[in-house]
Amino acid sequence: MAVTSVSLDPPYLLFMADVADDGHGKTGQGIAYWRPELCAGQMRLPGCEIDLGIPELSVEEAVEAGVRTAIIGIASTGGVLLDNWMPALTGLARAGINIAAGTHRKLAAVPELVAAAKAGNSMLIDVRVPPADLPVGTGNRRSGKRVLTVGTDCAVGKKYSALALHRELDRRAVNADFRATGQTGIMIAGAGIPIDAVVADFISGAAEALSPANETNHWDVIEGQGAILHPGYAGVTLGLLHGSQPDALVLCHEAGRNQLKSMDSNFAIPPLDELIATLLTLARVTNPDCIWAGISVNTSRLDDHRRDAYLADLESRYSVPVADPVATGMQRIADYLLERVQ
Amino acid sequence: MAVTSVSLDPPYLLFMADVADDGHGKTGQGIAYWRPELCAGQMRLPGCEIDLGIPELSVEEAVEAGVRTAIIGIASTGGVLLDNWMPALTGLARAGINIAAGTHRKLAAVPELVAAAKAGNSMLIDVRVPPADLPVGTGNRRSGKRVLTVGTDCAVGKKYSALALHRELDRRAVNADFRATGQTGIMIAGAGIPIDAVVADFISGAAEALSPANETNHWDVIEGQGAILHPGYAGVTLGLLHGSQPDALVLCHEAGRNQLKSMDSNFAIPPLDELIATLLTLARVTNPDCIWAGISVNTSRLDDHRRDAYLADLESRYSVPVADPVATGMQRIADYLLERVQ
Repeated sequence: MAVTSVSLDPPYLLFMADVADDGHGKTGQGIAYWRPELCAGQMRLPGCEIDLGIPELSVEEAVEAGVRTAIIGIASTGGVLLDNWMPALTGLARAGINIAAGTHRKLAAVPELVAAAKAGNSMLIDVRVPPADLPVGTGNRRSGKRVLTVGTDCAVGKKYSALALHRELDRRAVNADFRATGQTGIMIAGAGIPIDAVVADFISGAAEALSPANETNHWDVIEGQGAILHPGYAGVTLGLLHGSQPDALVLCHEAGRNQLKSMDSNFAIPPLDELIATLLTLARVTNPDCIWAGISVNTSRLDDHRRDAYLADLESRYSVPVADPVATGMQRIADYLLERVQ
Repeated sequence: MAVTSVSLDPPYLLFMADVADDGHGKTGQGIAYWRPELCAGQMRLPGCEIDLGIPELSVEEAVEAGVRTAIIGIASTGGVLLDNWMPALTGLARAGINIAAGTHRKLAAVPELVAAAKAGNSMLIDVRVPPADLPVGTGNRRSGKRVLTVGTDCAVGKKYSALALHRELDRRAVNADFRATGQTGIMIAGAGIPIDAVVADFISGAAEALSPANETNHWDVIEGQGAILHPGYAGVTLGLLHGSQPDALVLCHEAGRNQLKSMDSNFAIPPLDELIATLLTLARVTNPDCIWAGISVNTSRLDDHRRDAYLADLESRYSVPVADPVATGMQRIADYLLERVQ
């Protein structure tokens, strides 16, 4: 079945407001890094500490450059839309440029933005609103190949690893799509379903809709969410796992992280082969041939020498290719995937 | 944290309309069976094939009997509210009696009901609307004891088994609450959270809110949902499992069911010990001491002789107490639970 999913029209203007260089600008930085060809420019306010290295555009210049969508590329504390952003945002909307955001507070809940969009005949796109017509998952097998990134925890590089693997497949002229399941991924991809915002009954149905039947040699590289042993988000992870029908899982991890982060209580991360065994048992409900195709590790806290030793140790212990998507690239995982999934 | 959950005030009037005796009246029948002390009467329309065996009340008689809430005890095809119910329902609402329903079409979406409720100062209670202020699950350990029913499939008796186990604990004067997670369960309990209607990020948080910290010797008997190997609903099942922090799981099954029902594709139900091993691995994330406390089987398709052989066979294979909540009662599972969970 066809579902409406979020869709963003390029070229983009990345709205960075007056963000500090402290991690709150990751969405804009991610879009500029992964999709430079779609980014016509940036718009910053006085005090902004980030420069994305692309042209600074005013409203008029954005219109002239053919910008179709302005993306709010920063996260404010609490996910709100700040008052000092409004002159710029209403100016863009009034000039006919769509505004997209992944903030908790919805664009459509701000009357002055709604009025400006109406005046400019532009759209307000809230990326965290899932499509309304999602089905319950059926588990029916569909054609095409799929790989899903899964994690030992949240924020271990599932999105980055999926994007890097997709880029590597693309480089080899493999027919592949990156399938986004979270707000930043959706903005990078220009489409997707915010899987954690879907009503519980429809999680796997949303994943099925996101990676529909395709040509036999087509790959969907699906962005994972949450973690199967995470007390807050595992339901999302499992629905996504079942609905994706993955042929292969790439396990994402951060070197040195032994327990779940950002939790009040201690939750140990088990040995990776135990974790993957649980994931494969569950994945094989909808794809009995699902394999473990590698480990993607964020080793940014290790120096070069320790990194090499760490990756080699994991590889000898688990007998799957181990890579750091930034430091070593995803070539060997891509090799393994293409060789083992036929 | 405190959350608003659905709550129904007794005594009840069970509205059965003109339902046929074909399974569509299960909600009303369940409430009359499990909570007879809360049911002041029934209201039926000409052609109704079900008699709950309680007084037939008009609107005036319901008011006189002190009825606080009229519950729509039937499911129409498609979950809609039918026009021929409206004279009765608006009459009740106008007389100050709350109306509760678990239908897909919301009571609050029917203008004539809204007007009647306003005129009568009564409430329209849509049981399938979850509370708005649910938190993300934390996994923090909390006091009190909890048992969760889990299933080999949907519709294998998870609600019935939980209610029967709660009744058995109650009979022994064990301090226990039945915690409802589905619409019929919520109507029987008079409170609860429709876990499958919660946004995906908050499933386990909802389960935590539903079974909050309690006295050390208090038991929550929690109604399970879905099935961990069900391609449509497993995300709900896992979030509920993690959030419930169960000390014990009771596995519910229907004798003779070897694969998931109501699916286009075939999904085999694995050996019960394999299934419970997966469930325990996942459950022990939030409660390392979680045990398997028994199997509750619907054997209604077997004659007495075959039933006894079937139950004995399961028990010898899996070394946990095996019961049919209707035919044998939950005594042995309650014994095991109280002995093993201290």
